[in-house]
Amino acid sequence: MGLTVTEKIIAGHLVEGEMTPGSEIAVRIDQTLTQDATGTMAYLEFEAIGIPRVRTDLSVSYVDHNLLQSDFRNADDHRFLRTVAARFGVLFSRPGNGICHQVHLERFSEPGKTLLGSDSHTPTAGGASMLAIGAGGLDVAMAMAGQPFYLRMPRVVGVNLVGRLQPWVSARDVILELLHRLTIKGGVGKVIEYFGPGVMTLTVPDRAVIANLGTELGATSSVFPSDEMTRAFLKAQGREGLWRPLEADADACYDEVIEMDLARLEPMIACPSSPDNVVPVREVAGRAVSQVIIGSCANSSYRDLALASLVLKDRAIHKDVSFEVNPGSLQVLENLEINGLLLPLIHAGTRMHQSGCLGCIGMGQAPATGTISLRTFTRNFPGRSGTKDDQVYLCSPETAVASVVAGAITDPRDLGEMPDIHLPERFVVNDGGIIVPPKDGSRVEVLRGPNIKPLPVFDPLPDTLSCRVILKVGDNITTDHIMPAGSKILPLRSNIPAISEYVFSSIDPSFAMRAREVGSCMVVGGENYGQGSSREHAALAPRYLGVRVKLVKSFARIHRANLINFGIVPLTFKDPDDYAYIAQDGHVEIPGLRAALLDGMDEVELRVDGRLIVARLELSRRDREILTTGGLLNWTRARIQGV
Amino acid sequence: MGLTVTEKIIAGHLVEGEMTPGSEIAVRIDQTLTQDATGTMAYLEFEAIGIPRVRTDLSVSYVDHNLLQSDFRNADDHRFLRTVAARFGVLFSRPGNGICHQVHLERFSEPGKTLLGSDSHTPTAGGASMLAIGAGGLDVAMAMAGQPFYLRMPRVVGVNLVGRLQPWVSARDVILELLHRLTIKGGVGKVIEYFGPGVMTLTVPDRAVIANLGTELGATSSVFPSDEMTRAFLKAQGREGLWRPLEADADACYDEVIEMDLARLEPMIACPSSPDNVVPVREVAGRAVSQVIIGSCANSSYRDLALASLVLKDRAIHKDVSFEVNPGSLQVLENLEINGLLLPLIHAGTRMHQSGCLGCIGMGQAPATGTISLRTFTRNFPGRSGTKDDQVYLCSPETAVASVVAGAITDPRDLGEMPDIHLPERFVVNDGGIIVPPKDGSRVEVLRGPNIKPLPVFDPLPDTLSCRVILKVGDNITTDHIMPAGSKILPLRSNIPAISEYVFSSIDPSFAMRAREVGSCMVVGGENYGQGSSREHAALAPRYLGVRVKLVKSFARIHRANLINFGIVPLTFKDPDDYAYIAQDGHVEIPGLRAALLDGMDEVELRVDGRLIVARLELSRRDREILTTGGLLNWTRARIQGV
Repeated sequence: MGLTVTEKIIAGHLVEGEMTPGSEIAVRIDQTLTQDATGTMAYLEFEAIGIPRVRTDLSVSYVDHNLLQSDFRNADDHRFLRTVAARFGVLFSRPGNGICHQVHLERFSEPGKTLLGSDSHTPTAGGASMLAIGAGGLDVAMAMAGQPFYLRMPRVVGVNLVGRLQPWVSARDVILELLHRLTIKGGVGKVIEYFGPGVMTLTVPDRAVIANLGTELGATSSVFPSDEMTRAFLKAQGREGLWRPLEADADACYDEVIEMDLARLEPMIACPSSPDNVVPVREVAGRAVSQVIIGSCANSSYRDLALASLVLKDRAIHKDVSFEVNPGSLQVLENLEINGLLLPLIHAGTRMHQSGCLGCIGMGQAPATGTISLRTFTRNFPGRSGTKDDQVYLCSPETAVASVVAGAITDPRDLGEMPDIHLPERFVVNDGGIIVPPKDGSRVEVLRGPNIKPLPVFDPLPDTLSCRVILKVGDNITTDHIMPAGSKILPLRSNIPAISEYVFSSIDPSFAMRAREVGSCMVVGGENYGQGSSREHAALAPRYLGVRVKLVKSFARIHRANLINFGIVPLTFKDPDDYAYIAQDGHVEIPGLRAALLDGMDEVELRVDGRLIVARLELSRRDREILTTGGLLNWTRARIQGV
Repeated sequence: MGLTVTEKIIAGHLVEGEMTPGSEIAVRIDQTLTQDATGTMAYLEFEAIGIPRVRTDLSVSYVDHNLLQSDFRNADDHRFLRTVAARFGVLFSRPGNGICHQVHLERFSEPGKTLLGSDSHTPTAGGASMLAIGAGGLDVAMAMAGQPFYLRMPRVVGVNLVGRLQPWVSARDVILELLHRLTIKGGVGKVIEYFGPGVMTLTVPDRAVIANLGTELGATSSVFPSDEMTRAFLKAQGREGLWRPLEADADACYDEVIEMDLARLEPMIACPSSPDNVVPVREVAGRAVSQVIIGSCANSSYRDLALASLVLKDRAIHKDVSFEVNPGSLQVLENLEINGLLLPLIHAGTRMHQSGCLGCIGMGQAPATGTISLRTFTRNFPGRSGTKDDQVYLCSPETAVASVVAGAITDPRDLGEMPDIHLPERFVVNDGGIIVPPKDGSRVEVLRGPNIKPLPVFDPLPDTLSCRVILKVGDNITTDHIMPAGSKILPLRSNIPAISEYVFSSIDPSFAMRAREVGSCMVVGGENYGQGSSREHAALAPRYLGVRVKLVKSFARIHRANLINFGIVPLTFKDPDDYAYIAQDGHVEIPGLRAALLDGMDEVELRVDGRLIVARLELSRRDREILTTGGLLNWTRARIQGV
């Protein structure tokens, strides 16, 4: 039987396990990436492992999240990242050089290779036929140390693309349509693999948009084949030599197949406040907008900005709209300039920002109270923009720029003839923003600011766990709920004691105080718990406060892995109806939890205020060892010291 | 006897008083400008006056200070400013359109006219031969209402410029030299007027740099003659029709004359942490820098950015340096682009920001701990960068860009031949970022966010004031000390109860709490009290907390005027040695203060813990009335209602 692209890449990197969906496998990681919001912690973790130099083919440290520098902390983090990269043999992409996924796609993507990144949108590189997976910082630190990455063998969903997109309809609409069909839970445990004749009508940057937002489906990754389009992309980047073809075998067998006719798609938009709350643009057209932003790792490539420029060449920005552009990379900006496409944006009065994530991660660009903000960003979770009760809509650059002109949500097809967008056959390439580490970094001094605190050390799991239900929440809790971002909190990412004060603060401002008082505690949740950003702080900070167990109906993949990494036991209800029988502030005892883990038991009993509840332990042998030793760092140190 | 340029402009606008230095005069105001950090309050005050439309020739509302938008508040303020401008007949310059002083110089400056601005660097327009003065928001609101501006007739200092600047030495070095000679107190009560053959070697943007930084001398304003250079500047802006010649009479008499040979100047630099801590660059050359920023109303014109671009065309940014550029205006950015000068900056890896004040006012761009940041900004007061114990140096764009290349403070003359900078004979002019108000604004709805609170109402002054010395401070206290700015506090500018919590917080975090407890209190200070930014919040917020009197050795002009405007009595020690006899937490009684004010007494006695101290009341008739009625708004309302 033939193989899918996903299976081919996994087979080529398999270190442990069998490629049966759901069973644990370990894959060799060729490349890693980090960004600054998760990277400071990842490198502190890498340092704690105690290896002198990274063991990957390529590791890159990007600075794109915290660029505002409201005080010393961001700048100190940038300096730490620059020096720690030089010390351990990691490439360092300077602040302002670009968004990690955009730069990585442009400069480092390689068909058939594996990439592990401490950012949930790492699958962007799937547009160039990599198997690119988002993970917690500790997993990335392990990969940098040469360890394989452990995951459950995903199911592979084939999306059969036929036809060709109509004018004013773009890649963003493809994935919005898929989000509409599958919802934010639709990709859990799956890799979304695209095939069919429609694929070759999409450029690599188009594919990257689709792969990027597969994250919002909850997918492990998204993968495109490597074909002539891929070759053209690599050639345009001066990297044609890295091209190789990679397609699913004719008799490849997908676990599931979805049909999509590109020609039938129309402009779509995600309404507040979930990326899957998708409707056709025409259904919400006419609503006044106060702010429009084109940017983020989802939609800020040359093509997207060129489109906006061509539209604004002969049109004005509506007087009530703030139009802002966050270029995906310095390369994007430079090539726009060279091709005369920056001037129309400037002339129209666009607020041109440095290249980075900015408002997408709540670092500035908050909209005014009670007004609509239209963005090409990745997520519109409530309040993520920095404005409470925000009304953030997510859409294509086409819809965004049409709305800039009209001052209201507008179907871009109303603009008339679509301008021709010419992608450069060869981009002007400029790697001046990427600092190559010295051959021997052992004498580089790693510079730390006062906000960069050592990692906390955690206890092993006791035999019997006795804890308080410190919080009970519903379905679809995001890692933004658990560990908020934004300009106030992001600078604390390398300071666990300080950032822990904000755990669950948007849901319950007293959470940190209460958890610290109780000491040993548990969080109860519903379906799809921990969706969204890959931030390991959503596990690490609760663990620091005393959370030892999370009991939910189902977990999002990365968050579940992060829980294990930091020694929080992830339990799921055997009977979801038991959710009703467990109350906040209740007391829970789990006798013999440690033994149950080590003995490989599938279930464990919880004594909840006199009642017995059964929870599943869906954990691999390795997970169980990690949990009982108190987390992956303890486990790895023990193994290294044991050798 | 002939007149100086300053005297000619004042004479042409004199409404009340005699032009004798030190005596109160009232001058008609032709134009006003506001920025967003002071503007929200200024328009709330204008609304409180109750006039339907501004009565100036031209009033412009700029948004340049709070562009980060970390939450809804900045965006709400922008919306408020946009709608209130439309309602009252004010031009609105959109966020990102540029820094108020740069845009005003480009688009609205007019030789011989008066300009009042709610920003201390308003004198920038003196480069185009305006009498441009910084004032509190309430003064600007009054000017918008058609009221004259009251000030003491300044002494006029003539600076006789001869010779011509050497390569790599620029306008910034002229004013750094003057700051070195005169210090930050040297301009108090004075207008600095430039004359002599050296003037015609300086372009209007050069002159604007010098006029801008005259503010750091404590000067009321700085003025240049209007000559062929002025004409060329206006012509380049498509506004030649507004030109008229304006020079001092041959027999004009300056109160004081300073000689300066431009040819003998060398690159200068202001070391931490005062703009007058000036030394030649070569004395501090070689110190490693982590960050260099070209921007701010002082040095971000086309010429300054063109220079940086030409230098970086064939040179790289040092790998340890973050180089950032904040363009002065959209016009600067657009014309750079058109002339091929933006590309070298982008190519080099410059972090190009939207046009605005940004780091100069502590909105982002904070440097890393313990590292040197080199800036072309206006001020380097301690901590203003957002980083405690910062090491901010202020210098010319030449010195800045030379240091970018070297990674250390560098005398730009080390770079070899100076590139030729060609200013466009005609700038591409684009006023799309300036929204013209409707002819009839009465039906425009002014949109307010939840952070925009009504103005507090203040009591009249009691007959006898009994108060506690709530704080005693030393010399050169800045308005940044009194009312800090930065990304956390600036968004509270339209919310007096909230911002008041931060009064003196960098000196004494308990200040607000203690003041509120005491109720009626007094601050004691040394020389040059209240220097720096024009922010009226440094008077309004303390008044809200209960401060009724400030007793110091000497006041900075704008702050003193703001104190009067908000009903805080500004007293100066008759005998400065008495400063020693008054202790923090002491009790002070001022019997008959109200009567002393109304009776025109020059002095008043203070009972300080059993001792008698004499304080001067250096106040005009109008000042006295304003103080006794509880501030300028009360006084104006009473007059309007009295009519």
